[in-house]
Amino acid sequence: MQAGDDLAALIAPEVRGGDVVVIAQKVVSKAEGRVVALDAVVPGAEAMRLANDFGKDARLVQVVLDESVSVIRASHGVLICETHHGFVCANAGVDMSNAPDEDVAVLLPVDPDASAQRIRADLGGSGYGVIVSDSFGRPWRLGVADVAIGAAGIRVLDDWRGRRDAHGRELHATEIAVADQLAAAADLARSKDSREPVVVIRGAGRYITAEDGPGAAALRRPPELDLFR
Amino acid sequence: MQAGDDLAALIAPEVRGGDVVVIAQKVVSKAEGRVVALDAVVPGAEAMRLANDFGKDARLVQVVLDESVSVIRASHGVLICETHHGFVCANAGVDMSNAPDEDVAVLLPVDPDASAQRIRADLGGSGYGVIVSDSFGRPWRLGVADVAIGAAGIRVLDDWRGRRDAHGRELHATEIAVADQLAAAADLARSKDSREPVVVIRGAGRYITAEDGPGAAALRRPPELDLFR
Repeated sequence: MQAGDDLAALIAPEVRGGDVVVIAQKVVSKAEGRVVALDAVVPGAEAMRLANDFGKDARLVQVVLDESVSVIRASHGVLICETHHGFVCANAGVDMSNAPDEDVAVLLPVDPDASAQRIRADLGGSGYGVIVSDSFGRPWRLGVADVAIGAAGIRVLDDWRGRRDAHGRELHATEIAVADQLAAAADLARSKDSREPVVVIRGAGRYITAEDGPGAAALRRPPELDLFR
Repeated sequence: MQAGDDLAALIAPEVRGGDVVVIAQKVVSKAEGRVVALDAVVPGAEAMRLANDFGKDARLVQVVLDESVSVIRASHGVLICETHHGFVCANAGVDMSNAPDEDVAVLLPVDPDASAQRIRADLGGSGYGVIVSDSFGRPWRLGVADVAIGAAGIRVLDDWRGRRDAHGRELHATEIAVADQLAAAADLARSKDSREPVVVIRGAGRYITAEDGPGAAALRRPPELDLFR
């Protein structure tokens, strides 16, 4: 995948209406040219200090800081950052693995919901759901799980609040993170070392919406509702 | 579902070797008699104080405290607790919705991995994977996603650390929370207000192991590796 590649043209022959298309963030970022050559990065004082503490490449740390509005935790060799988008994740989503060259870092798309909307439109729009996925670590639980960082045409949150359970009692606090669960399901279908950046979920058409909708932005917990920020 | 019900006998006719069976925690808890009648609960001082602050039933809060080793956060009307098992979740997993009676709370199984092992053995053992799932909220992201609180015969974590990406570079920090992703995938197949406590995943046999294995306990991040506890 290279800058300017037409992702939708590559995907279109494999999909049909009613499909949810889950695309790994990295391939979207590369198609959008969201890569930084580390040779061109001059690390500042904070990046130098963190890189020294953590045994990391100071240029890479500078790229992470540039992608962040704040560092939530810097410990255990890990930077947990809030990105410009409002995601909270390790290294602000900046990654070197599967990067095209040794000294290139891949950044998150500037606006992953817009990326998903563009790909959806190119596929034919209504009838398709598109998710841009990334692997995030979690507090309290080991291992990464894929989440939706971008979405178009997906009911990202299924809101059961106020509805009643099978006994007629009101369900509490039940908003289901549908788009994240679709991303997680898709991840089960591929290997991390393969070149399978796209997974098609068939049979989940009930989660597809006519409009692009609010996107994965709707999955970001506002800081004032967050107990861990 | 009632105490003593034989879950495996209900499931067995619907499954075959190679299937992963994902069972909602609540039905497992009820079959194991893990319910508390609130009439029999006498709230202590801390439960009275928290209940008063949060507008909750003090008896229910007492049940939550009894299931917890510590309260990680008490804010926004939510108690985020560490359970005796080591799970960190809202209300220590204690729930009233879909409970059999108005004044009954459903607790997590005493040992959800043992629950999964028993069900697996009853289904025929090797060849099946069993997950006990529950819906957990997440910091930083809205909505709940299902995770595995119990597992048997499942490769719960897929460890890619030290393996190489498609460019030959070592993959970093890539342990995949397979069992959580299977739980999330299963949740997409049912409705919260239906009586569909069991979902069968077919075609995920590569995640099934010959032995019961370490179970979902292996997904609990040790406190010393946790930046948010």
